[in-house]
Amino acid sequence: MNSQDTKKAVVLVSGGLDSATTLAIAKDQGFDCHALSFDYQQRHRSELAAAGNIAKFFAVSEHRLMTIDSGGPSGSALTDTDIPVPETPQQGIPVTYVPARNTVFLALALGYAEVIGASDIFIGVNAVDYSGYPDCRPEFIDAFEVLSNVATKAAVQGQRMRIHTPLMAMDKRRIIRTGIELGVDYSMTVSCYQANSQGRACGVCDSCRIRRAGFEAAGIADPTVYV
Amino acid sequence: MNSQDTKKAVVLVSGGLDSATTLAIAKDQGFDCHALSFDYQQRHRSELAAAGNIAKFFAVSEHRLMTIDSGGPSGSALTDTDIPVPETPQQGIPVTYVPARNTVFLALALGYAEVIGASDIFIGVNAVDYSGYPDCRPEFIDAFEVLSNVATKAAVQGQRMRIHTPLMAMDKRRIIRTGIELGVDYSMTVSCYQANSQGRACGVCDSCRIRRAGFEAAGIADPTVYV
Repeated sequence: MNSQDTKKAVVLVSGGLDSATTLAIAKDQGFDCHALSFDYQQRHRSELAAAGNIAKFFAVSEHRLMTIDSGGPSGSALTDTDIPVPETPQQGIPVTYVPARNTVFLALALGYAEVIGASDIFIGVNAVDYSGYPDCRPEFIDAFEVLSNVATKAAVQGQRMRIHTPLMAMDKRRIIRTGIELGVDYSMTVSCYQANSQGRACGVCDSCRIRRAGFEAAGIADPTVYV
Repeated sequence: MNSQDTKKAVVLVSGGLDSATTLAIAKDQGFDCHALSFDYQQRHRSELAAAGNIAKFFAVSEHRLMTIDSGGPSGSALTDTDIPVPETPQQGIPVTYVPARNTVFLALALGYAEVIGASDIFIGVNAVDYSGYPDCRPEFIDAFEVLSNVATKAAVQGQRMRIHTPLMAMDKRRIIRTGIELGVDYSMTVSCYQANSQGRACGVCDSCRIRRAGFEAAGIADPTVYV
């Protein structure tokens, strides 16, 4: 099919392992991918450089960076440097939870999709090997899809919006194996919650622990550069 | 009741007539109001000064300004200065529609509510005298409320989120009469889509037309300062 027939999709690309795999899947499904990243004053801002490299690697049609400044405290260890990132496993929803983050990200993705005429949004959420965030669960995604189909001019005019979550039911092992098959170079990705400015990972936060265990389970050498 | 017992609410305050009335209603209902405004690169940025004055007038506990930079074209006359604001009535959803704006605004309000421990959000949408935007309709608000009750840590922990739309079924005449009763000084508000830097209204855009007709219908002298 030529580029006129290719369906546009907005793909949320954080710079981490999951979203890189999601982008590879969207490309593999034949979508014309438009990558979207967010600067939300996160402490691990080096992931944005990784997002740019991944977007380039997969030759997306556009990579847009949106900036959100919440104008004050966010109550999360990922954005308040006064709250330390836990380095041992936590019970319940951890302090790295950012209030309403995926709601905000999908809302902005919805606006971007409408502007470029896309009716498909890909997000790399996962409800198996994850940190227990409420906005990574299928019921959240389902509710957002319902919302997206009443929220926009495009929806009112009959365009059906779809929120794709190809990783939702995969464990980390399967995510990594899928990505490797689709050509993802995981050395380009940054998952760490407190990666340093060169993108080197701490090795001890929740995200690093889940990622490292995933490579072990997949039987693939961990390409992560640790501090 | 003392301030410990007062329920916190996030109130979206744009600087316009509807949101000023909504803030007055939320105060009248006894909420401890936290005002939230957005700088989304709108051409009528002078509404933000009005929002600040209104927030001060109603002695809100906090007025937070969040900044969103979508990093590129938005496809709306309100944010792309290349697209003129129509000065005659339009058919259908007008070019002043900003893709997914209220989805983005409510998403950020939801995050703010969670941070401050509020379970009530007020938004001055109205489906009677309005510009035909999809994200001002009851079905949109209902879908967002459902979403907000699966999206956050607070919701998972049993807090029930409510999205209040006190103006939804009011015509402009009734909105203005309600506001006057509650002490709103409408000369402080800016509704115009292309207000100048001093907040003076054009008098000819859709928003100005609806507002002017509202004062006429209410039998109240229009305090708007026109260019």
